[in-house]
Amino acid sequence: MTGTLYGVGLGPGAPDLITLRAARLIAGVAVVAYPTLAGGQSFARAIAADLIPAGATEIVMDVPMSLERAPAQAAYDAGAARIAASLDAGHDVVCLCEGDPFFYGSFMYLFARLSTRYRVEVVPGVTSLTACAASAGMPLVARNERLTVLPGPLPEDELRARIAGAESVVIMKLGRHMAKIRAVIAGLGLTQHATYVARATLPDQVVLPLADAPETAPYFSMILLTKGADPWL
Amino acid sequence: MTGTLYGVGLGPGAPDLITLRAARLIAGVAVVAYPTLAGGQSFARAIAADLIPAGATEIVMDVPMSLERAPAQAAYDAGAARIAASLDAGHDVVCLCEGDPFFYGSFMYLFARLSTRYRVEVVPGVTSLTACAASAGMPLVARNERLTVLPGPLPEDELRARIAGAESVVIMKLGRHMAKIRAVIAGLGLTQHATYVARATLPDQVVLPLADAPETAPYFSMILLTKGADPWL
Repeated sequence: MTGTLYGVGLGPGAPDLITLRAARLIAGVAVVAYPTLAGGQSFARAIAADLIPAGATEIVMDVPMSLERAPAQAAYDAGAARIAASLDAGHDVVCLCEGDPFFYGSFMYLFARLSTRYRVEVVPGVTSLTACAASAGMPLVARNERLTVLPGPLPEDELRARIAGAESVVIMKLGRHMAKIRAVIAGLGLTQHATYVARATLPDQVVLPLADAPETAPYFSMILLTKGADPWL
Repeated sequence: MTGTLYGVGLGPGAPDLITLRAARLIAGVAVVAYPTLAGGQSFARAIAADLIPAGATEIVMDVPMSLERAPAQAAYDAGAARIAASLDAGHDVVCLCEGDPFFYGSFMYLFARLSTRYRVEVVPGVTSLTACAASAGMPLVARNERLTVLPGPLPEDELRARIAGAESVVIMKLGRHMAKIRAVIAGLGLTQHATYVARATLPDQVVLPLADAPETAPYFSMILLTKGADPWL
């Protein structure tokens, strides 16, 4: 019997925002897999740490830091091969994914490589999107409002055009793009509507008006721009 | 001691997609609250049914079916008053919310009415957005892709303009707007890229190419248009 690959969303960071299904799957599995970036710690593994059975085999896919695609592709190729070997041996494999596997998650690279040959189940998780809204106490979208999600690395002109035509906007993956994003928002006269949230749901969570946010932001941070939210019905 | 109001996201429908935090809060509370529509069943209550303690007080806010806002506003005013009375009496209140409270959730109407006077905590939940993507086996957004979420009731011209300029698109709240939405997608030549998902994660879940979807759709359904998703890295 070939095993099943589970792509398991773990939510934004607080271990108790894991779903009951994800917790059950992790606690019962013999093989877990997760990526790390350039030898760093795995955030996904940290979220799930208390649930991983002692003695579980851990398949670590170390993805090198590079703007080129080939080195990362090679890392996922190698990881997929190791996961496939476990599945072939009859073991289920749980791939740990921060947030949701299909919402900017690296699990989709494994899904593309393995889902035509193996049974793959995706367990959705709480995204940073709604976790940040909850932490900020800011309703994201109501009724017939539109929501636009924009990655911070997009070019300045595109960010400006997409924000200008939108209602509620979430800008993700701030990192070293913070100065550019701030300038775009300021140029549109929207700074006073913008909230910065970093490490939502973790003990060191930060929620600040964008005007008071730091010059550089961690990867796990976002800006909420809810121009349109009208929570009064 | 005044109680705390918890707005608790329950996820898309499968009871085991409730988070550990939500399950703990529901199981330990004496007062739960939830809306119903025109005397119908509460989907949120159904998701959480097995967790609600026997003997818990239930505050039901029945929202009448009406295109006017005043009757619904009156229902939320009355519900907020009943919740406030419980909080004043020192009880915590858990408001049950399908999906996520701040993602098109009616909890935000209670939040607007009560959060300036009481301690309110929002527990984010798995949204139908990523649940549908998981059920369809379709990665939603990767890397620097943009995501646009559009409610189906939007006017035809606006839907067309927003879809044409977008990458990954999710259209929610299909219901009686299905024929209009189909025509817009067909007019843009995108029908073959569109997937219809109804009642994601429930036993009677439906996943179909849009071309094969029914003429009318339930409220809990959506269309995924992932023109841009490139899961291969």
